[in-house]
Amino acid sequence: MQANDRFPLLEMLASCAQSQNAAFHTPGHKRGQGSFAAFRELIGDRALRADLPELPELDNLFAPQGAIDEAQKLAAETFGAEQTWFLVNGSTCGIIAAILATCNPGDKILLPRNVHQSAISGLILSGAVPVFLPPEYDPILDIAHSATPETVKTALEQHPDAKAVLVIHPTYYGVCGDLSAIANLTHTAGIPLLVDEAHGAHFAFHPDFPISALSTGADLTVQSTHKTLSALTQASMLHVQGSRIDRDRISRALQLVQSTSPNYLLLASLDAARAQMATQGKELMSRSLELANRARSNLKSILEFVPSPGCFAVDRTRVTITVSHLGLDGFAADELLQSYGVTAEFPSLQHLTFIVSLGNTEADIDRLIEACGRLPIGEPTSLIPANIEHSFSVPPLSPREAFFAASRSVSLESAIDQISAELVCPYPPGIPVLIPGERITKSAIAQLQSVLQVGGFISGCSDPTLNRLKVVS
Amino acid sequence: MQANDRFPLLEMLASCAQSQNAAFHTPGHKRGQGSFAAFRELIGDRALRADLPELPELDNLFAPQGAIDEAQKLAAETFGAEQTWFLVNGSTCGIIAAILATCNPGDKILLPRNVHQSAISGLILSGAVPVFLPPEYDPILDIAHSATPETVKTALEQHPDAKAVLVIHPTYYGVCGDLSAIANLTHTAGIPLLVDEAHGAHFAFHPDFPISALSTGADLTVQSTHKTLSALTQASMLHVQGSRIDRDRISRALQLVQSTSPNYLLLASLDAARAQMATQGKELMSRSLELANRARSNLKSILEFVPSPGCFAVDRTRVTITVSHLGLDGFAADELLQSYGVTAEFPSLQHLTFIVSLGNTEADIDRLIEACGRLPIGEPTSLIPANIEHSFSVPPLSPREAFFAASRSVSLESAIDQISAELVCPYPPGIPVLIPGERITKSAIAQLQSVLQVGGFISGCSDPTLNRLKVVS
Repeated sequence: MQANDRFPLLEMLASCAQSQNAAFHTPGHKRGQGSFAAFRELIGDRALRADLPELPELDNLFAPQGAIDEAQKLAAETFGAEQTWFLVNGSTCGIIAAILATCNPGDKILLPRNVHQSAISGLILSGAVPVFLPPEYDPILDIAHSATPETVKTALEQHPDAKAVLVIHPTYYGVCGDLSAIANLTHTAGIPLLVDEAHGAHFAFHPDFPISALSTGADLTVQSTHKTLSALTQASMLHVQGSRIDRDRISRALQLVQSTSPNYLLLASLDAARAQMATQGKELMSRSLELANRARSNLKSILEFVPSPGCFAVDRTRVTITVSHLGLDGFAADELLQSYGVTAEFPSLQHLTFIVSLGNTEADIDRLIEACGRLPIGEPTSLIPANIEHSFSVPPLSPREAFFAASRSVSLESAIDQISAELVCPYPPGIPVLIPGERITKSAIAQLQSVLQVGGFISGCSDPTLNRLKVVS
Repeated sequence: MQANDRFPLLEMLASCAQSQNAAFHTPGHKRGQGSFAAFRELIGDRALRADLPELPELDNLFAPQGAIDEAQKLAAETFGAEQTWFLVNGSTCGIIAAILATCNPGDKILLPRNVHQSAISGLILSGAVPVFLPPEYDPILDIAHSATPETVKTALEQHPDAKAVLVIHPTYYGVCGDLSAIANLTHTAGIPLLVDEAHGAHFAFHPDFPISALSTGADLTVQSTHKTLSALTQASMLHVQGSRIDRDRISRALQLVQSTSPNYLLLASLDAARAQMATQGKELMSRSLELANRARSNLKSILEFVPSPGCFAVDRTRVTITVSHLGLDGFAADELLQSYGVTAEFPSLQHLTFIVSLGNTEADIDRLIEACGRLPIGEPTSLIPANIEHSFSVPPLSPREAFFAASRSVSLESAIDQISAELVCPYPPGIPVLIPGERITKSAIAQLQSVLQVGGFISGCSDPTLNRLKVVS
């Protein structure tokens, strides 16, 4: 990787933000002159001066020929892609575009059951038919890992008409499957491998991380540059290599699902994050690994994943502790740590996960160790395992058919065995339990109820208290 | 309207930004600690401290129960809606959701030919079939106005199976049709009226503006709070009233087309813009009108629209001058003014348009008048009228069918009479000339070529130099 200390889009935005011209364009606040005082106080004058529209100097996200084009080319070089697109609508829009660009309505796509909800959105918008792969599931930990190469192989044999495979690399917990083997199998079947690498934007920059999706030969990967690198929240990238992906169709698909008024603070933050990794990537990642390893050495109840076909490699900067050993659930532990001066990434029923990144300091790690040491110890809690299906499942209706179908609202008891009209997704960790078009099982209802009982919440359904569910009429 | 000086989401974000907790959550920069130096220099430390994820205190955009819920309810009250949704993916995602929530695949929707490209995205993603209404078109000015109530009435009679009507209010030039009459006709037909009010977020706050969409009884309106009010670029709102819109389906549709990692600077800027208008709206809008009227009195070649059925009311803060009278095209005039210290909103072949907003000052207006006075005067230029169809047109393929169809790339000459596979949109003003599924006419090609010749550019198509176009095979 060639170090590259230019940042053309960031430089151009900085230059435009210095303009003293009278502004008769959007945004209405005109470089902050018209901002609400309390908001200016929050965000500061600099950010407001740089909140600019698609001025000619700033290029056009959907027809890049200038600073955005240059910045995207540098990003492709830095992340090891042949072409890169900057995204202002999160990895969500990248996953949707990946599906829209590879699947026609009615086409089959293989993807794991523990896919992120953005993939379900892609299924609904494209009309693609999912073949859900059972991920490896550890019922003791209540954690789903990756699907294995064997699972992918069998699914490809059973569904030779599939048009693409989509996998998660890594999972929310930093666990990676054997992506190289999956890439080989997928390519042998003559179809592209799409990767949800939302939590792995940093993988290319240190040999101690799991292999990056592009290094395995994956055709397309979507990375949340904001999650583990330094872009602003909601800023992501989509990378492509090889000839299995129609790049024009990616551009056309991305134009469907992103604002025609993209925010340049988000875009420039991608150029900045790229420049930072191009120039200091390995050094910053070494430091993150050292910090994470120090935390791992000093925390009790660290979850060390046992290698298995679904757990081929682990990102050690993703640190999870098992709080059920202490008689706490993750939500209660999260609240306690918050009061002790530490804010975690996400709690689940048994666990609490922390992201160590280039933004963390030695002092942060000291506080993490100190705060976790203060957690009280009680009786271990019991657990309701999650609803992870162990067979290839093709739902009775496609997600798109279910989204548009007439539906009615029924009580939870009456919903069992009906077809879900809703995407029902408990937060955290944002993995859907009910997918539009799927038959509603008793265990799915039980899982949702247990998340609510312990203080999580449910997104997507019409009744967030989950007294009623929408089912296809 | 009740003045309301609370701003719950902005306050909560400001409070969270003060936290001294060690951060083990996204974004990776951890309140700026890990930001790239040049980016921190651009945006400032305050904005970075406030770039926070969906912490419990900050609620959840897709299942709002706290600060976002409160802020959205205040926005509904302030803008005159029954329910309001905050949008982080621009008005684009609001228009798409409006179509997804009202049209099933194959359903007809009436909408004007000069619709924004986000509506075309909505057609592609929903599978709705457009019935394009001819807008009133002034060939001398090369400007399309609104469709008339008579046009809407005839279209509703010819297409009694239509499921919704979508109109633009105002146009890019600030021109409004007789929306109250259109709302009555649409409701008589028993279907909802959807409004692209991207450029009219300020209408509710002063009696001298055209009537706001909600005041006419429109069922749903999408406003770019960033364009004429003080939100950050890419932050918009969707408002609904009455019972013709399925609100659950709006929520489900919006979840499909927005990032699951919404940026809180964008969200808080919507709360701020709302609080600003609730407390100072009329005063700020009076001032904007005064500034705009002073500009209008002192600029030459001001475009004053003649009242007509397609030009029922005009937003006087949208100021357009006709530079073709001076022998300039809008792109050249734009460049000259830029060098004189004034940046306009958008040039077209004959015109240059300025947005006067709450962010402008007396000094801005002085500079506008001075700079426009320096424009050189030459021979009036000639004009190729735009390709505005004058009959109800239903394209041979639906936009969705065309998006997914096999396509091939052909020369411009060979493209004539073929069916477009691309959305081709000249910028400015971002109104598509070719829509996927439409037959490509000679005049459409001529219009695109003329935009390129004078320095505009073309978005969406696979070849931005427009040597080749993608057509359905």
